[in-house]
Amino acid sequence: MYDILIIGGGPAGYSAAINGRRRNKEVALVSKEQMSNRLRQAHQVDNYLGLAEISGAEMGKKFRLHAVREGVEIKEDEVLNLWQEDQSFHGLGKNEQYEAKTVILATGVPQKATIEGEAELVGRGVSYCATCDGMFFRGQKVAFISQLPEGEKEANFLADLCEKVFYLPQYKGEFDLDPRIEVISGKPKKISGTERVSALVTSEQEYEVGGVFIERAGIPLDRLFPGLEMEGDSIKTTRRMATNVPGIFAAGDCTGRPWQISKATGEGQIAALSAVDFLAVNKG
Amino acid sequence: MYDILIIGGGPAGYSAAINGRRRNKEVALVSKEQMSNRLRQAHQVDNYLGLAEISGAEMGKKFRLHAVREGVEIKEDEVLNLWQEDQSFHGLGKNEQYEAKTVILATGVPQKATIEGEAELVGRGVSYCATCDGMFFRGQKVAFISQLPEGEKEANFLADLCEKVFYLPQYKGEFDLDPRIEVISGKPKKISGTERVSALVTSEQEYEVGGVFIERAGIPLDRLFPGLEMEGDSIKTTRRMATNVPGIFAAGDCTGRPWQISKATGEGQIAALSAVDFLAVNKG
Repeated sequence: MYDILIIGGGPAGYSAAINGRRRNKEVALVSKEQMSNRLRQAHQVDNYLGLAEISGAEMGKKFRLHAVREGVEIKEDEVLNLWQEDQSFHGLGKNEQYEAKTVILATGVPQKATIEGEAELVGRGVSYCATCDGMFFRGQKVAFISQLPEGEKEANFLADLCEKVFYLPQYKGEFDLDPRIEVISGKPKKISGTERVSALVTSEQEYEVGGVFIERAGIPLDRLFPGLEMEGDSIKTTRRMATNVPGIFAAGDCTGRPWQISKATGEGQIAALSAVDFLAVNKG
Repeated sequence: MYDILIIGGGPAGYSAAINGRRRNKEVALVSKEQMSNRLRQAHQVDNYLGLAEISGAEMGKKFRLHAVREGVEIKEDEVLNLWQEDQSFHGLGKNEQYEAKTVILATGVPQKATIEGEAELVGRGVSYCATCDGMFFRGQKVAFISQLPEGEKEANFLADLCEKVFYLPQYKGEFDLDPRIEVISGKPKKISGTERVSALVTSEQEYEVGGVFIERAGIPLDRLFPGLEMEGDSIKTTRRMATNVPGIFAAGDCTGRPWQISKATGEGQIAALSAVDFLAVNKG
């Protein structure tokens, strides 16, 4: 049982984590990447006060090292679902299950279910976790839409189970894929099906499949914790970074623009201190 | 004419300054200290992501150096009064006068006129600027209440003009004072007088004086720009750090708790980007 569970490994999440540790709280930070992709890819960052002319990758290393020194438990995992039970929060990760008294959402730029048919067919052929749901698709043809290289490992897992895996990367680079996987090109346009998924339509072709897996930087927030109040695409928060759910706080890009590092670390700090206040009031 | 005038030289002010410069704006930062006293005095700071185990003084140097590299004009001065005229803002400093299209207030922990009689007698014997108002007290006895070593220079200036200067330091240390100045002890309790100041009452004694000078980390905000909407002691702002006055933004401790560095730099960044947006809309 953690005091604070932080979901997201970017500047907001890491700032929240070190601030929680400074207040002597047990803190877990769950992120599928060691450091957010957006930060790692920044060629040079000049507007984070005190670290002039630094690459995003180097800055990310400093951030992570700082958190390690402070004793943050960093979990390379992805929380797929979050719910509240018996006055604590439960997070179902791909690898582990987490329990915490408070949660800080620091999931980055909001992701939406943007593919036509995706939202309607979740749980009926659309999945965000190959290792969780892969067995349901044994012997079938499936498609895998991936925005991140992390998808390759998941797709390889499916290659062992499925009759056929079509891999549709939405990023550039070398693909480290099982030779049985067929890499396809184009943009995802539509997931079709009435009761269940029957096909993936790309900008180039239609593929008859029984399942579509999707790998994004984050799962859609309204799916992570239903009932979380949004404002447009962002999580609605107070100045103290509280969401509409007591005990859940949010920080960084997921709370709205500007999508900037200092804004994110500042909000991460406030969210952590608000979580600490919440724990004190609730005798955490 | 600056694009952005930043009042205050702490983490919020410096973060606003570098962010304004990154957007190619002409930025002046006015601060009577090279770096905020609160930061300089911090023995060790551990919760600003990326700079682990660093002293406040060392962090302050990094912040300042970053701003210098970015071409921020740093003015060692104190803005005593701010007003709006002909669609621009004018700041009256002790040394210079400033004109700018937008203003960011980053004045630190809110200062209030806390001494009994102070608010009532401002301009009638109570002054915040010895070099500005000293001549009005020529040949008189005056008291000088100082929370900062910076007050010593101001008091020395008065020693040449006044019959007698009582210096009441509210800090510890060596005092670099003109030998004609009498250092007194105690806490300031009351400034008395009906039409004008007639005496300063301390916790130990009463001093008959015609003037009382006060040196604090900042001048009371409601005196700096009358009409600025407050929320308790803090400046009321939106999430985008806008105040109730179009073109004036605020960031850092002056907008409310938590009084923390990341919170301040984050707000400084947002305030600067909001000022940039304001300039674009108003064809700055």
